[in-house]
Amino acid sequence: MALVFALAVAAGVASLAGAPEVATFAVSGIALAGLAWVITVATESVGDRFGPAITGVMQATLGNLPELFVVLFALRAGEVIVAETSILGSLFANALLVLGLVLLAGCRASRDGVMRFHPRLPQDTTTLLIIAVFMIVLLGLSVGSADPASTHRVAISAVGAVLMITVYGIWLFRYLRESRPTAEEELPHAPANRLAFPVALGLLAVGGLSAALVSDWFIAALDPALETLHLSKQFAGIVIVAIASNAVEHVSGVVLASRGKSDLAVSVVKNSVSQIAVFLYPALVLLSLLLSTRLTFVIQPVYVGALALTALALWQITGDGEAYPFEGWALVALYLILAVFAYFE
Amino acid sequence: MALVFALAVAAGVASLAGAPEVATFAVSGIALAGLAWVITVATESVGDRFGPAITGVMQATLGNLPELFVVLFALRAGEVIVAETSILGSLFANALLVLGLVLLAGCRASRDGVMRFHPRLPQDTTTLLIIAVFMIVLLGLSVGSADPASTHRVAISAVGAVLMITVYGIWLFRYLRESRPTAEEELPHAPANRLAFPVALGLLAVGGLSAALVSDWFIAALDPALETLHLSKQFAGIVIVAIASNAVEHVSGVVLASRGKSDLAVSVVKNSVSQIAVFLYPALVLLSLLLSTRLTFVIQPVYVGALALTALALWQITGDGEAYPFEGWALVALYLILAVFAYFE
Amino acid sequence: MALVFALAVAAGVASLAGAPEVATFAVSGIALAGLAWVITVATESVGDRFGPAITGVMQATLGNLPELFVVLFALRAGEVIVAETSILGSLFANALLVLGLVLLAGCRASRDGVMRFHPRLPQDTTTLLIIAVFMIVLLGLSVGSADPASTHRVAISAVGAVLMITVYGIWLFRYLRESRPTAEEELPHAPANRLAFPVALGLLAVGGLSAALVSDWFIAALDPALETLHLSKQFAGIVIVAIASNAVEHVSGVVLASRGKSDLAVSVVKNSVSQIAVFLYPALVLLSLLLSTRLTFVIQPVYVGALALTALALWQITGDGEAYPFEGWALVALYLILAVFAYFE
Repeated sequence: MALVFALAVAAGVASLAGAPEVATFAVSGIALAGLAWVITVATESVGDRFGPAITGVMQATLGNLPELFVVLFALRAGEVIVAETSILGSLFANALLVLGLVLLAGCRASRDGVMRFHPRLPQDTTTLLIIAVFMIVLLGLSVGSADPASTHRVAISAVGAVLMITVYGIWLFRYLRESRPTAEEELPHAPANRLAFPVALGLLAVGGLSAALVSDWFIAALDPALETLHLSKQFAGIVIVAIASNAVEHVSGVVLASRGKSDLAVSVVKNSVSQIAVFLYPALVLLSLLLSTRLTFVIQPVYVGALALTALALWQITGDGEAYPFEGWALVALYLILAVFAYFE
Repeated sequence: MALVFALAVAAGVASLAGAPEVATFAVSGIALAGLAWVITVATESVGDRFGPAITGVMQATLGNLPELFVVLFALRAGEVIVAETSILGSLFANALLVLGLVLLAGCRASRDGVMRFHPRLPQDTTTLLIIAVFMIVLLGLSVGSADPASTHRVAISAVGAVLMITVYGIWLFRYLRESRPTAEEELPHAPANRLAFPVALGLLAVGGLSAALVSDWFIAALDPALETLHLSKQFAGIVIVAIASNAVEHVSGVVLASRGKSDLAVSVVKNSVSQIAVFLYPALVLLSLLLSTRLTFVIQPVYVGALALTALALWQITGDGEAYPFEGWALVALYLILAVFAYFE
Repeated sequence: MALVFALAVAAGVASLAGAPEVATFAVSGIALAGLAWVITVATESVGDRFGPAITGVMQATLGNLPELFVVLFALRAGEVIVAETSILGSLFANALLVLGLVLLAGCRASRDGVMRFHPRLPQDTTTLLIIAVFMIVLLGLSVGSADPASTHRVAISAVGAVLMITVYGIWLFRYLRESRPTAEEELPHAPANRLAFPVALGLLAVGGLSAALVSDWFIAALDPALETLHLSKQFAGIVIVAIASNAVEHVSGVVLASRGKSDLAVSVVKNSVSQIAVFLYPALVLLSLLLSTRLTFVIQPVYVGALALTALALWQITGDGEAYPFEGWALVALYLILAVFAYFE
């Protein structure tokens, strides 16, 4: 944990001292991933007071904090492409890469090579994703055909964002209430990670603040670093930022799956996916109304298609509560195909 | 019932006397909704002679009568956009708004907050919708890429229409034969609504004729009324006409669901959706071959996407025979998003 | 069998002697269908040595041999449209036309008019199809919006092809291992078709070689024949080549279904579909890197949509392990709609 803060400090020094941008970029990227982990641990400890279901949601929400800051700073810097692809990249990384690895780990951990889990949450996640897909596909078609509605993209996005958040809220309310009884056995904390309440609360505050600062430096170093590395902004968003700011969820999901905790592993990943799609993204759309650069649900056609087909693939593969190894690898392959596209954009 | 005919007469007087168009538009809109109800009641009474399954289909078919007239008069007046969006609007209003409200009412009526119903009909409806989606998406892509086939849109639409109607016919044949035994208990008529056979038959004739006349006045008043109200034609089709001409199905479905008659409520809405998609729309495409303005399956890109995703959402949400409140609200939210698009077109 | 080879020889004579191209085209088309049958019979007999699961895969692979040759010769002749639509046509013919007929035959053979089969293979086929759809839709959107990635279509296609083949390999490995025990009872060979091992092996070699030669003549006669017949190249690929080179699988699947062997019939068709989508097509993309005309996953927008919706329709209709007659006819109707498009392209 000290290492993480050391990295965060190093990122700050590098940024202010005018170190090579690639170095600043790398250090602050790793520091971001570390801070996401710190926040996760702190949340777990704080959550002991409130019960596991609330903890789960807090964890997903605060675990998305670094991402939130990255997107906000990117928007402030006028980097709409980085902002958008960072959100989408987080979604794709969770839904395709991480879920794929979770399924592969889960199949390996199972005696007969088939991973089994409750299909309820995957089904719910699909329903939530469909709303985001509906909004984004319709807006994409409207912009693509340059019809009159496309000139009102900000207003339409704002209305859509409010509606999405209400659906997420209604879903979340029932999910939290229903998962109370069974959740206790499902969230066994590693004792090493448990912190005293005030320590955890302080850590949360410091972690959040650091995440905000490091995000700022990260975004400032992004542009020149990408130029030096000859990488496109879309690759940065879809792959680099996505993996940096979600690394912890990634590792924890795979570890849970390899220990045979199928349901919990699937729940961590699925909750993250639906939260990004119908809470984080809409919330950022609404927040951006206060900024000069607006975030809307208008995204590049390739990502519109990728989002719709990701929702479909998730539904088809996890909707039956069973997963085979080739299905896990199929999801990873989808992510790799997408990364190749982002690389060439 | 007298009130309905009074309204119809008022609509006629308003139309012929040159009343303000907005008034004519409002009165004839309400009269249309009333006439749909009259036709429904008359059909039920006539249907007592033929058994409930046939009644159900007659009801759906005749209940779509006002819609049929609206579309035909719109086509005759050269208002292709109003014609198309009226059909699509009826489909979306039933599939998203009404089904969403039905699910919400059904969940509220259920003891554990979960609405349950047979998944067979929802699955069938999805299959039928997929054919319409296939036709419409392919034609949309053909027109969008301006390939050679797009210049033959009338011929392609006609062939597609014939094929759709055959699929619907084969499905309907089996559905009617199979639903005979159980349907009796499922269609308890309110005694108050039962009429003597000749009265009912007469009412049907008068209702149908009135619907035709009122539709004519409705369409004539539409254009100037929309201008006065600053509303787009698409909003008129997707929202106003759709709700006016389907209001009765809407209310009856929600009432049935709130009484716990899940299967019947779902069946009324689903039958209406599939009939519009693979019978009414194709039949109007074929009928329009006799008119100077042709109706085809070429629709605006935004509605192509909305139709495909509506089919998907219906399948995903109702295909498992269970519905949760957030799913009902999700469908309503999809309709609201669509209405916002239509408003800005 | 002698007739088939006689036809093949006739095709050669016609081609070399400068007979009317339409005649050469017709004779070589029929000869190709016959050779596919010869190869199937020979494979079955060879396969007796290796067990039924391996035979099944060998059969699908070698049964696709004529198709492979047609596509390769079309590419060598620079006929990219014929090459692409031949692959797609084979896929659509199997997935829509043949599967539709299989379902109709299966329903007729069943006592209660409902065909039943294991839903596992249909689900797997859908998963495999989704990867192909993902690649093709994303590339289509990229090319459609002319974004930077679209200029790298060959590289992206090649990476995608490799990934698809790995997913297919992993799936196939498990499928072969798992299907060993039950397959024995499922593959009862007609004794008349069984040949001595060396005869079968020789027949396979001669059949394969003949298929290669006939494919060459077929492609050479294609262009002038189409001009004489006033048919588009896309119609040739989607309908004529597709039916000629898959006729045998078609007939055998329908025959199996009409004898009540639902699972085997579905397996023949489904295996063929997934093999074309995620093995044959990607393999041809990679092979074409050695030719001057490159095959990529860029296809016409209409076929992109048709492919995505075919995957969806297959999943929706066969994913539940039950089929009704209207579902079989719905698939056939989808194929007919597609054929109408191809006719007008």
